[in-house]
Amino acid sequence: MMGQPESVQWIGDVDGCLRLLDQTLLPLELRYVACHDVDAVWEAIKNLRVRGAPAIGIAAAYGVCLGLRNADETEPELFDQLQQVTTHLTGSRPTAVNLFWALDRMRAAADRLRGRATSREIRQALLLEAQAIHAEDRATCHAIGRCGTTLLPDPARVLTHCNAGGLATSEYGTALSVIFTAWDQGRRVEVFVDETRPLLQGARLTAWELTQREIPTTLICDSMAAQVMKEGRVDAVITGADRIAANGDAANKIGTYGLAVLARAHGVPFYIAAPTNSFDLSIASGEHIVIEERAAEEITENFGRRTAPVGVHTYNPAFDVTPARLISAIITERGIIQPVNRETIRENVSGQRTISK
Amino acid sequence: MMGQPESVQWIGDVDGCLRLLDQTLLPLELRYVACHDVDAVWEAIKNLRVRGAPAIGIAAAYGVCLGLRNADETEPELFDQLQQVTTHLTGSRPTAVNLFWALDRMRAAADRLRGRATSREIRQALLLEAQAIHAEDRATCHAIGRCGTTLLPDPARVLTHCNAGGLATSEYGTALSVIFTAWDQGRRVEVFVDETRPLLQGARLTAWELTQREIPTTLICDSMAAQVMKEGRVDAVITGADRIAANGDAANKIGTYGLAVLARAHGVPFYIAAPTNSFDLSIASGEHIVIEERAAEEITENFGRRTAPVGVHTYNPAFDVTPARLISAIITERGIIQPVNRETIRENVSGQRTISK
Repeated sequence: MMGQPESVQWIGDVDGCLRLLDQTLLPLELRYVACHDVDAVWEAIKNLRVRGAPAIGIAAAYGVCLGLRNADETEPELFDQLQQVTTHLTGSRPTAVNLFWALDRMRAAADRLRGRATSREIRQALLLEAQAIHAEDRATCHAIGRCGTTLLPDPARVLTHCNAGGLATSEYGTALSVIFTAWDQGRRVEVFVDETRPLLQGARLTAWELTQREIPTTLICDSMAAQVMKEGRVDAVITGADRIAANGDAANKIGTYGLAVLARAHGVPFYIAAPTNSFDLSIASGEHIVIEERAAEEITENFGRRTAPVGVHTYNPAFDVTPARLISAIITERGIIQPVNRETIRENVSGQRTISK
Repeated sequence: MMGQPESVQWIGDVDGCLRLLDQTLLPLELRYVACHDVDAVWEAIKNLRVRGAPAIGIAAAYGVCLGLRNADETEPELFDQLQQVTTHLTGSRPTAVNLFWALDRMRAAADRLRGRATSREIRQALLLEAQAIHAEDRATCHAIGRCGTTLLPDPARVLTHCNAGGLATSEYGTALSVIFTAWDQGRRVEVFVDETRPLLQGARLTAWELTQREIPTTLICDSMAAQVMKEGRVDAVITGADRIAANGDAANKIGTYGLAVLARAHGVPFYIAAPTNSFDLSIASGEHIVIEERAAEEITENFGRRTAPVGVHTYNPAFDVTPARLISAIITERGIIQPVNRETIRENVSGQRTISK
């Protein structure tokens, strides 16, 4: 981990609390927020204190534990409350499927004990399930890194967008795990980081993770990616994904789709790195993915200063969908999906549970 | 003008001063700076208080007048000083050709009077030349608008980048002149404005010019343009240009090239609107255009707040070059150049003087 702080930590036993690294304050300030109830977790997800599809899933799983903290009474009460808590958390952010996936796993873990355990025992089992989700993500991230390096030349000049790093996951990340793993293997890596407007996750988070490891990192505005590609300075684009449909269409941070079009136009391979729990096989294609729209102020107010005239409209989709035809390969913890289509995805992501939304 | 303030104004006679609208403070504050010497003009151009290729040319022409203010002595002294002043201004920004073009015109105006007039008469002739450049730009902008509207459907949904409006010119603009003219003609127009990182000329200036006229305006981050095109919400992209090579390759604000690639990928026409004095027929193609690189802080510091980690490199080209093959047409004050190639440009931009750099 080379000293990088963890974005999500559970502190203590079943009556413990969730500690989140407040990602809205990075890189200026390294501050943690302690969440003692489910509302605090909901707020942290909604306001991007914790963000990144896998990290949102992990935080939500722990959020369920917090939401059931006072549910030691009777089993029906506990299941009632479980229903309320998961419904509440479901409403925090609509696009990343890992949120729904993690909540499903938590419900299933409780269901397995229905009628066979005390409320406290169920709560203890739920904490174990959240911790399992957390631990599995660690292993998944490292496996994605190992798989992904096989796609990179040496030296490799990689362009990435938003943050799909340790902060977005348990540790190490998805897209950044590929870079970190190549770097750890002693390979030469250089990274171009899109700053990623409006909230600058690239500048604030990805550049921070990379420079902490002393990996050569060049920060650019999103609008400069085309120029860097045109100059022949990019060997591969790698991003994460928040949800991947059964046909391979992938939702990720706004700007990813444009990057994929540009990569294709410049003959640069475009890769998505994501765990198999980011696949949503219940939807046929990307057009069914719900895209979150966020507040106008993210565009019109920049760090406290108004930078747009009053009266202007805004359009602020948080995500876009990259069609499978523009994705050269998807890197998962199980291997490389290439080419990307319904058949290769079905083969590689079999056993993935259906997600209820 | 509907009350929009002028970006460049000369106040008084030959001993007067230059008044510039400080565009770095918009839209929050409408403040003018008075320039009483050439250094003040150089600083204003360098630091983007005045910006936009035509406005830079006009400001530089007036800057010559200010630089010769104390040159009433002898003719050799005046021509010495003229040489120093134009060389100094030439170094302010390297990409927009209008700067070099305007300085050339000023030198030529002085040369015509060499040995035939007093220093004060030459200075008076130079002020008249600067005022002629200024007045011609007004007429040019309106002519560009009239020509450009013929390319737009009704209703028209236009996407633009950076600011090619009244602020970037004497008034009315180039790309925005097309929109303003269509609007004045009672046509239905809707505009998507790229915010244009790093300095947000789209958000701060273009959105301000459009909303002042109550034209429906939607501000987006640069990374959202691809999504808006994908949604079928853009009928045309129109931008300005800072320099156009003999083959039609056009330098404009960073991000323009990527937009042109995206427009082509989505079947959206991509237009450049620029006066003929933005053409530089002395260079064969865009690869010879000098691209200004600006300070890292434009990317790492946002309105006083540091948003990137210490130790990160940056790449901050202020412009990029869009190859002619991606430009559907160039709109000039003389008409539409379509298709864009060496021959059509030679036919349409004949008589354009060669620029010395």
